[in-house]
Formats: sequence, C-alpha cells, structure tokens
Amino acid sequence: MTLIRNAWYAAAWSHEIQRTLLARTILQEPVVLFRREDGEPAALADRCPHRFVPLHRGTLKGDTVECGYHGLCFNAQGACTHNPHGNGLIPRMAQVRAYPLVESQGVVWIWMGPPELADPATIVRFEPLEDDRFETVHGYLHVNANYQLISDNLLDLTHGQYVHPMFRNAAGPAAMEESPVSGDTVWARFVRRDQLPNQYFRMLGFPPEQRGDHRNFMRWNPPGNLLLDVGMTAVGGRPEDGLSIPTTHLLTPETETSSHYFWAMSRNFRTDDRVLSDELLRVGIDIFNNEDKPVIEAQQAYMQSETDLFKMKPILLSTDAPAVRARRILKERAEREQRQGAAVPVPVHAK
Amino acid sequence: MTLIRNAWYAAAWSHEIQRTLLARTILQEPVVLFRREDGEPAALADRCPHRFVPLHRGTLKGDTVECGYHGLCFNAQGACTHNPHGNGLIPRMAQVRAYPLVESQGVVWIWMGPPELADPATIVRFEPLEDDRFETVHGYLHVNANYQLISDNLLDLTHGQYVHPMFRNAAGPAAMEESPVSGDTVWARFVRRDQLPNQYFRMLGFPPEQRGDHRNFMRWNPPGNLLLDVGMTAVGGRPEDGLSIPTTHLLTPETETSSHYFWAMSRNFRTDDRVLSDELLRVGIDIFNNEDKPVIEAQQAYMQSETDLFKMKPILLSTDAPAVRARRILKERAEREQRQGAAVPVPVHAK
Amino acid sequence: MTLIRNAWYAAAWSHEIQRTLLARTILQEPVVLFRREDGEPAALADRCPHRFVPLHRGTLKGDTVECGYHGLCFNAQGACTHNPHGNGLIPRMAQVRAYPLVESQGVVWIWMGPPELADPATIVRFEPLEDDRFETVHGYLHVNANYQLISDNLLDLTHGQYVHPMFRNAAGPAAMEESPVSGDTVWARFVRRDQLPNQYFRMLGFPPEQRGDHRNFMRWNPPGNLLLDVGMTAVGGRPEDGLSIPTTHLLTPETETSSHYFWAMSRNFRTDDRVLSDELLRVGIDIFNNEDKPVIEAQQAYMQSETDLFKMKPILLSTDAPAVRARRILKERAEREQRQGAAVPVPVHAK
Ligand code: FES
Ligand code: FES
Ligand code: FES
Repeated sequence: MTLIRNAWYAAAWSHEIQRTLLARTILQEPVVLFRREDGEPAALADRCPHRFVPLHRGTLKGDTVECGYHGLCFNAQGACTHNPHGNGLIPRMAQVRAYPLVESQGVVWIWMGPPELADPATIVRFEPLEDDRFETVHGYLHVNANYQLISDNLLDLTHGQYVHPMFRNAAGPAAMEESPVSGDTVWARFVRRDQLPNQYFRMLGFPPEQRGDHRNFMRWNPPGNLLLDVGMTAVGGRPEDGLSIPTTHLLTPETETSSHYFWAMSRNFRTDDRVLSDELLRVGIDIFNNEDKPVIEAQQAYMQSETDLFKMKPILLSTDAPAVRARRILKERAEREQRQGAAVPVPVHAK
Repeated sequence: MTLIRNAWYAAAWSHEIQRTLLARTILQEPVVLFRREDGEPAALADRCPHRFVPLHRGTLKGDTVECGYHGLCFNAQGACTHNPHGNGLIPRMAQVRAYPLVESQGVVWIWMGPPELADPATIVRFEPLEDDRFETVHGYLHVNANYQLISDNLLDLTHGQYVHPMFRNAAGPAAMEESPVSGDTVWARFVRRDQLPNQYFRMLGFPPEQRGDHRNFMRWNPPGNLLLDVGMTAVGGRPEDGLSIPTTHLLTPETETSSHYFWAMSRNFRTDDRVLSDELLRVGIDIFNNEDKPVIEAQQAYMQSETDLFKMKPILLSTDAPAVRARRILKERAEREQRQGAAVPVPVHAK
Repeated sequence: MTLIRNAWYAAAWSHEIQRTLLARTILQEPVVLFRREDGEPAALADRCPHRFVPLHRGTLKGDTVECGYHGLCFNAQGACTHNPHGNGLIPRMAQVRAYPLVESQGVVWIWMGPPELADPATIVRFEPLEDDRFETVHGYLHVNANYQLISDNLLDLTHGQYVHPMFRNAAGPAAMEESPVSGDTVWARFVRRDQLPNQYFRMLGFPPEQRGDHRNFMRWNPPGNLLLDVGMTAVGGRPEDGLSIPTTHLLTPETETSSHYFWAMSRNFRTDDRVLSDELLRVGIDIFNNEDKPVIEAQQAYMQSETDLFKMKPILLSTDAPAVRARRILKERAEREQRQGAAVPVPVHAK
C-alpha cells in the first residue's frame, strides 16, 4: 500500500514547536521542526547534505540551523547560508528540502508532496479546535501500526463496547446507522435514545439516574482526519443543550507500519475546570495508550509487514462499512498519485 | 529444513491449561489454548478472521472465546457462534481452525497436520509419567534454537562431563555403547560400573563412599520425544532396587529457530519428600536454563538461520552416532511429508 | 564496499590478552584470543568444527583450548590435540584456523588475509607508543559504524570546533593546510599561531594568559592507522620544547557497519603524574564515547547499511580533502584485492 503524499498532515501540535530542534519522521522522511524568531514554524529535511548527520543534533541560531558536525548553516528555506571553512564559498548543492507548513487550529500542518500542489484551503476544519465555547486537552501517542488500522478502529463505533470498559453499555454494542456519503467524507454514526449514562458520562457529571440520548457521530476525511461528535442530552434534547465532548484524531504515517496519533478532547461544559481538564487528559492517555494501542499493534504484528488489510481476505461485518469506504477512497487516491508519478519515492539509500 | 507436521507435539503440561486463554506459537502457527467447562482442553488458531486480532486478547465465556475487539464468539470447534452486530447473521467464512488435542500422561498433545491423520495411538508413552511409583516435577523453558540442536545435546550423553559440573566424573567422559536400533527409536547409552557417585547422586542420597553402577539410557522417538532412564544401583544391582530418576524431554518447534522445551524429572524414592521435590525443581531449572540453553543458543547464533547442521559439514565424533541417526530419520520424515504435499505451508501472510 | 583483508589490524591492546579466552569479531570472523604459557599471544577461529559452539565458552588449559561442549582440545596453531571420546582418534578435519599475530608497541596485531602475505615489516609505527619519553593511557570503544566514518571524523580536524566543547576556539574552526601527499600516507594539518590556549591545553597546564602556537598534525595510513601529533609551544617555539600530547587511533572493522576503536593518549610532560593519567583517561572516554561516537553512529544510521559514502553523493567541503584521499586509497586497495581473489569471502553460513 502506497502512502499518500499530496495531503496535509499534522506534523505537531503548535505547543510542541518551540525554539529548539524537534525530530520527527513523517512519510518515511526524517524532518526537523523548529520555530523561527518571528514565531513562524519551519520544517527541513533532517539530514545534512555534507556527511548525512541529522540536523536536529545541531544548534538553532537565529533562524538558521547549524550542523553539529562541521558547522554548515541552513536557513528556514533550506538554503545553506554559511560555510565556516576554507574560502567560505557555499557549494551549489548545499541545501536541504524545506517543507510547506501551515499553522492553524493549534496544529502545525505539513505538506510532503510537491510544494506547488500545497493548497492551505484543503486543510480539514475541526470546529471544536476553533470555537471558543470549547475547552480542549491535547495528547500524542506513537503507534507501531499502519495508520489505517487506527482509522479502522475509530470508524467502527462498536469497538468501545469490547475495548473500553468505560464506554460499555449493558444492552450490548450500539446499532450503527446507515452511513451517509458526501464526496470524500465518510460518516459512522449511532444514537442511543432514552438510555442511562455509561461510566464515561457519569464521570462527566450526567446524573446517574437520569435517562438521555447518547450520540456518537464520527466524521472521516482523507487521509487521517477524524472528528467524533460525542454527547448526551436529555431525552429528545438538542445537542447544543447537552454535554458535548467532541474528540479530534489526526493520524500521520511515520512509516508504512508506524504512525503518529494526535488526539484532542474538547468540551462545552465546565470549560474553566482545570481539575476536569487534568482528569480528561488522564482518561484519554489511559484509553488510547492502554486500550486501543495494544489491540492495534497486535493486529499489525499478526499482519507482519502487510498493510493492505484486504489482501488478507478478512471477513466483513455490517459495522465495517464506513472503514471499508474510507479504505477504498485512500486506495483510489494512492493509485491516482502513482499514475501521476507523485507517489512516495523509495528513500534514496534504502536497501 | 522443513518442520514435521504429522506428529503429536506437547502443546502444554496439563496444569498449564486452565479456564483462561494461553497463547503459544507451535510450528510457526499462533495457537490459543484453554479448557472447556467439561474439563476438556481446546486449541484454536489464535487469530480472529475479522481483523486479525489475536483471540487470546479476548475473553473466555463458557466454551466460547469472545474476540476482544468487536465481540465475535468462537466455540471450541472454531465455529463462530455469535455476531453481536447488525442482523446478527454469521458470515460464512467466520471460523477459525481447531486443532486435534489429546490429554494423556499429564501432557496436552497437539496435532498440527491434517486432522484426518491424527491417531492418538501414535503418542509416545513415558512410563515414569504414568506409573504411580514415580513422583514427578515439571519444568518448561523457551530456547532460541532449532529443536534438533536440543535433541543433539540430549543424545550425546558425554556433554554432561563438560557442560554440567554436577555430572562430572573425575575419570573423564563416559564411553557410550554401540546404540541398538529399533524402527524409528534411537538409543544412546552408557553404564559406568563400580564407580563412586558423582555430585548429583550424592545429593540424591547415594552414600558418598559407596561404589555402584551408574546407568544413562536415552530413548528418542521422532520428532522430539526423549526419555532418559538414569539411575544408580549397588555394584551389580538391579535397576528397580536402586535410585531411578528418569527424565522426560518433550521438544516442540515454535519456529525453525526456536523451541518449547518441556522437561520432567521423576523419581522412585522419597516420593513424598516435598523438600526434595523443590530441590529437584531448582536443580532442573538451573541445569537446563543456565548450562544447556546458553550453549545451544550459541550454536544457533553461530549457525545464523541455518537449521540443517549437515550443510555446515561438521566433523563427526563417535559419540554423535545416535544424534546423526535421529537427524536422518527426521530428514526422511520431512521429505516424505513434502512429497505428500503435507509439508508446513508458508504462513499465509509471511513476507 | 569490500573490507580489506591484507593488512595488519589491531586485535587488542596487549594488556587485554591474558590467560583467559577473549572473543572478538574481526572482519566479520569470530576470533578467540588468549596468551600462551610462554607469554605469546594466540588467535583462533572462535568456532568448534564439531558442533559450532564458540570456543571462547570453553576452558584454556595450558596452551590448548578445550571446547566447552564435548571437550575437543585445540592448540595455538589450531590443531586438534585431544579427542576424549571413543578410540580417541582425531578426525582429519578437526582443526580451526589460526591467525598470524605480532605483538609490538603494546598492540596485538592480527592478519586476516592469507598467512603467506603477512609481513610484520608493514606494521605501522607509532612513535609515542615506543618512545620512553612518553607516558600513555589506553582506551577502547565499540562503534556501530563503518570504520571509514571514524577516519573521516579524524581526518577532518575542524570537527573539534563543533563536536568537542573542550577544543573550541573563539576565533572559529582552524584553517586546514594543503595536505602533503606521500605514497599511501595521508596528512591533515593545521597550525594556529599566537593563540590563547583552549580549554584542553589549560587543563594540561598551559598558562591561561600565555599565547602560543597550537599544532594538529594527523597522519593516516591504510586501512585504519592514525596518529595525531597535537601540541602547544611558546610562540615560535620548537615542538620538542612544548607540550606534546599525541594520540593514536587504531580502527579495526568488526563488520561492514561496526568497528573496534582503540585509542591512546601519550604525553611528554608530567609523565609520572598518575592523577593526570586518570584525568586524561576520563577525558578521552568522555570525548570519544559521548561526543564522537553518537554523531558517527547517527551518520551510519541515516546511511542505513550503505558504507560507500560517495554513492550517496555528499557535498564536499575544502576540509574533506584528506578524508577523500584516504577513501580513494582504500577503494583502490579493495579493488586490487578483489581482482586478486583475496577479498573478504562471504561468511560460509551467512544467508
Ligand atoms: S555533516 Fe553537516 S557540516 Fe558536515
Ligand atoms: S477482530 Fe475479532 S471481532 Fe473484530
Ligand atoms: S562442539 Fe566442540 S567438542 Fe563438540
């Protein structure tokens, strides 16, 4: 399965990029990220063209990165601006790739494909990250699995019943609705009406004895942008009047079989409650790290280095429909890129 | 070297199989083992056909295993008995392989070949595991080496002199007898008459000053069944009148280059002595883990992934005769299986 | 890149070879080293020809190594001298390779090529290791990188400015001189005249306020012999009148992508000062292990298993001239060996 290059990926949460050198491999390419003096983020190929030492081992000086081995300096556009040796002439090939970045919604988005195709208008919007009525906590985890195994997990809304005790419903897994289709957007949804709250909503303060409507609306956009609108209202209530705790999930391939997983939990209630924020952060870390990650990594381990689930002829359940649709869209995208010659190049020195 | 499928292998000691899910890879196939409510053991392919999550991560409910990801249930025959989603119909392909098992002699034996060829009558008998006059302690270790390197070790009775200080004899290594042959059974034997006891027999209570006859009779049956009758009697005495401390060795390939090694030490004396049992367990663990395992793993490491010793043109010593004979029998077996098309299939998703 | 066999390599510092069995892989071959009763060093292939157990797991008895598995004994010439089994006849093939060794300058040198080509006269001389006016401390480190990445590091004298805070000069990196050429010897040199001492020379006792001339003369001989004459004199002074602290660097390939790095720091001052010796040992370990090794290993990691730097099309700086010259000489040597059929054989059982 070929990774998709012509897309915006989350490279980091904004708060991760500071006046320091952050190394992160994205789509199999080592990248070094930092913030310029004017506050703008920058991303360069993390490999000095002189002797192939990672630039993140060097020093950030003003807006340039000084290589830690022999002192060549590169600016935020990847141009070599200083050669401290000999006559100081700068060799023509002394430059590294700079990647287009956009910072929005608290995310630093990176474009790994040809820069001329990078259109910021195609960055997916996550309302809870932009809307002041929401308070948000942010998390990150590294997963040793292809990123599609993570979106499979997220698009199957029934897995909470088995994987997450906190989301379990005594009546069994929810019945997923027929998913609406809209261009490249895939939905997975269920509503459970007239229910007692599960452990999660009780923790959030929904009265344990009060019945309500519990909704789970997952929206997926390629390649790895997911927004889950989850909330509980009084029976028959309007979403905006109840508890909303939407979660954002941004999946960025590190390699074919490992991923960066950025997640955020927003909420429209008790937004000033720092204790609740800390508790949600703790719960999020616990759920994603201790409950989802092991099952997803076990899948990948059993699939060995295979990343195309369909080649393994899985049986399909009704709940798989959204994930299968998303996989088809990605497959078409990847094939289109390959036809256009824009597919992920084999890393130059890979054996 | 191809592994042999048409054979009974020890999958576990009986006491290892409980009302829980035990994962164990056998002949390169992941297997999940459990005990049914009626006490019978069961073994299934440890991979859910839905999304390839190992079933041992799920839950044992009655006689079925509920997958821990989306809740499909499989019974002890491998049939899917419950789909909690949508209309609940069970997809035709929703089944996993169930392996024939036989429980006898305190061992759960598994058959990895075509079930129609599984004949319990061919399970090798280990008298000390069946005979009430013997008390037995059981052990297990994992060895990163092809299982034949372990039987080489066991069939060469002289290695004790160099590898195990406790078995060392001041007079040098024993002279192995010409080995009798009987069908597929291979023997390796020595008797040292009129000896002082070595450290091992002194520990077992043989009087340090008393001379006696020390015998070591190893019996091998393919693929990895070994019984060592070891004992010491008064000079000229009958085995049944002296100390007998036979050991059982069951070798089960995990992969081509790693093995499950089940061992048991039985004895016909002080059978109620729990302190002696604990001491023997401790000695067995020490000897197998700290003395045999390192040398065998060093061999495999130096052979890299080669598993056919003969391809490496080893020099042969007179003491190698039994091990060479055993290797020839296994080679013929493997070739026969391959001709019959019953050889180990390449794992479906292996790269 | 093929490793060079027809050369003397440092196998060990003399003090490492004692009456014990030392295992070390050299040019991809496992070697066991020991000292005979008469004090001469010996080196054998570290693999018993019987069952391929490493001989270093056995026992040194007199001048022979007794295999730890079944007791075959091999003398310092690699001949099997004792078979404790059966009729005791020694199988014709029971021998292991013995490698030519020369002990000189406190180094045990090994010859991995055809023994008939081993000429001790070609061992490179390191004056500070032989001259009584110098006191020397010795170190060793293991580096996960091709040995040429280490000589690249050493032949570029400017890296100290960036990699080693202790050698930093406020005026920037030194200007390297045009390198003289002399047969297969490559030089890299700089002299900084009329300087204040850097942190290193201050530590060595050069008065902080006194100006002087600081020289760095690196001499390289194939394949991995480097001597750095580093010292500081009064302005215009003669080297023999100032502080000399020459360092020896002996690089021995373990595999294509890992190396043994033997280093020594000699000095012509305060030669009886044990506290200074200890301090220099500490500084050497700190610099080589904590400053050079990480950058060199990061290079190799980014190059993956590539060992031919030029294939990766690095940009070249003026300071690279000596290292490039050294790499060309090694390339010619390797090609010559290959034409002569003396290249490194593929290890017999490698897959
Ligand atoms: S490796 Fe970056 S300047 Fe040399
Ligand atoms: S992976 Fe087992 S039910 Fe989905
Ligand atoms: S392996 Fe060395 S004597 Fe057997």
